[in-house]
Amino acid sequence: MTTSTPLLLADLTGVAVFAASGASAAVVKRLDLFGVAFVGFVAALGGGIFRDLVIDEAPPLAFADWRYAATAAVTAAAVFWLHPQLARLRTTVLVLDAAGLGLFTVTGTLKALDAQVPPVGACLIGMLTAIGGGLARDLLTGEIPVVLRREIYAVAALAGSIAVAALDASGHAGAAGLTAAAVFVFALRLVALRRRWSAPVATLRPPRTGTRGTHA
Amino acid sequence: MTTSTPLLLADLTGVAVFAASGASAAVVKRLDLFGVAFVGFVAALGGGIFRDLVIDEAPPLAFADWRYAATAAVTAAAVFWLHPQLARLRTTVLVLDAAGLGLFTVTGTLKALDAQVPPVGACLIGMLTAIGGGLARDLLTGEIPVVLRREIYAVAALAGSIAVAALDASGHAGAAGLTAAAVFVFALRLVALRRRWSAPVATLRPPRTGTRGTHA
Amino acid sequence: MTTSTPLLLADLTGVAVFAASGASAAVVKRLDLFGVAFVGFVAALGGGIFRDLVIDEAPPLAFADWRYAATAAVTAAAVFWLHPQLARLRTTVLVLDAAGLGLFTVTGTLKALDAQVPPVGACLIGMLTAIGGGLARDLLTGEIPVVLRREIYAVAALAGSIAVAALDASGHAGAAGLTAAAVFVFALRLVALRRRWSAPVATLRPPRTGTRGTHA
Repeated sequence: MTTSTPLLLADLTGVAVFAASGASAAVVKRLDLFGVAFVGFVAALGGGIFRDLVIDEAPPLAFADWRYAATAAVTAAAVFWLHPQLARLRTTVLVLDAAGLGLFTVTGTLKALDAQVPPVGACLIGMLTAIGGGLARDLLTGEIPVVLRREIYAVAALAGSIAVAALDASGHAGAAGLTAAAVFVFALRLVALRRRWSAPVATLRPPRTGTRGTHA
Repeated sequence: MTTSTPLLLADLTGVAVFAASGASAAVVKRLDLFGVAFVGFVAALGGGIFRDLVIDEAPPLAFADWRYAATAAVTAAAVFWLHPQLARLRTTVLVLDAAGLGLFTVTGTLKALDAQVPPVGACLIGMLTAIGGGLARDLLTGEIPVVLRREIYAVAALAGSIAVAALDASGHAGAAGLTAAAVFVFALRLVALRRRWSAPVATLRPPRTGTRGTHA
Repeated sequence: MTTSTPLLLADLTGVAVFAASGASAAVVKRLDLFGVAFVGFVAALGGGIFRDLVIDEAPPLAFADWRYAATAAVTAAAVFWLHPQLARLRTTVLVLDAAGLGLFTVTGTLKALDAQVPPVGACLIGMLTAIGGGLARDLLTGEIPVVLRREIYAVAALAGSIAVAALDASGHAGAAGLTAAAVFVFALRLVALRRRWSAPVATLRPPRTGTRGTHA
């Protein structure tokens, strides 16, 4: 609750960009105003609610501080009325999502460390904070979760959260270091998208008998 | 835990109607007895478990008080053996769901206010308590979540929770006012269903290039 | 946190077998290394995270004790690189899943009883701990949740958790009794799979008008 102002600003910026990503995805799916607001709300606040449940901050900030819900609602409504042309929306979702990924990785990992979670757990919580909203957005709108696609996504968040934990352990978790970590996640995600980087896929020997499941 | 008797009765009635809605939906999907019981259980208790996690009531009432699980199980079993004809089931699900929406909106908002959650957060928690079970039911049975369809659903719950918060703030949260709020949500939802009221949908300018996602 | 060594070993064994089941399911779906690790992580730790949220153990063991995440990650990576031939994977998933079901039923029920949850709630929490990871795995990989298929699954876990609660109430919850309960769930699940045992399905009178939803 005693969140510092820069951390609050980073958190609310993450809420806004994830709300915009969720709302854009919902507009693409032709949901109505409230469906757009709901998907925006879940994408923006779902990861943080999970984080706060896990570190036992009750009620979660999304409910304790009205500025979180208000930021998500205003952003989603703005996307609903002002959204650019459809073809541009898909790119917008991806870029906003990458920005939210970087911001929530940093704030999520920091909050978990502040709550005395050990480093390995704090990195996992930071990653899950960052990917949780997008995961919920994709489950709600019936898309294959972005985290399961063959792209660098969760791993960018995990690398960023390890960087934050290392900065924290070495006493360098100042504004400059944390901003660098957020930008690193954002840039890594965008470069991976643009160059279509992906992680390796398991090789499967051809099955002896015809079976379902061989198609990708 | 010190729930008053009327609030407990309202809560258990909400559990029963949502269990019946979940069980009916599961019967339509031809699930077996335990699948029907499980979907009934999740639809009835999912929203309340989420509410209790968020307001840090541990363990959630669904696990602390055996009457919750027993109400859900008995209702689901009754639906399994006594369910009316298939064609009637779909209407039954909708009406029961509307009743549960009204009851859980009121009890969820009140419990959050009792747990010292600020009004904006309490309204959101009340809404999520009311829509959570139906959302989980729809995700489990592979339906498009009712909350995302072009219908007045979450917004009816939100309006009801704002009414409860206003009654509470003005010292009028007695049995009469709260009953009126629950009936208001129930009636708003039924009228919206019958008149096919819906919220506006974003207009999309035609994309310059052919693209997926334009179909509803 | 003061988990006894045998309980910790049973818990970590459950983590490993569920991680292997999740990773195997992800390999079948052709997910990449990180998708495989993520599904393995969720399948292995999802049920336990839910259990710890519900009994208010914060942070959940999955984040508080690095050995949980490490066990899940190492197992998932091993499956990714060493997985046997595709045709065998499906059977492997089912057997590992049955073993995890038995182990998590026992440890989940015991932990809930230790946290002073009443017996009915503790049985439900034990069952949900056991089925939660597989449910999340199936939702993520787009399969019909195993718990909703016409098979003895959740009911095996529920029978096991009732056995654990009875052993605990009668003062016989020693290593022998608990091992027997875990083996009982495992065996019941495997026999049900092999003999295609299933629970009854509701009979539906034919609808008067043609309607969707009649197909299974």
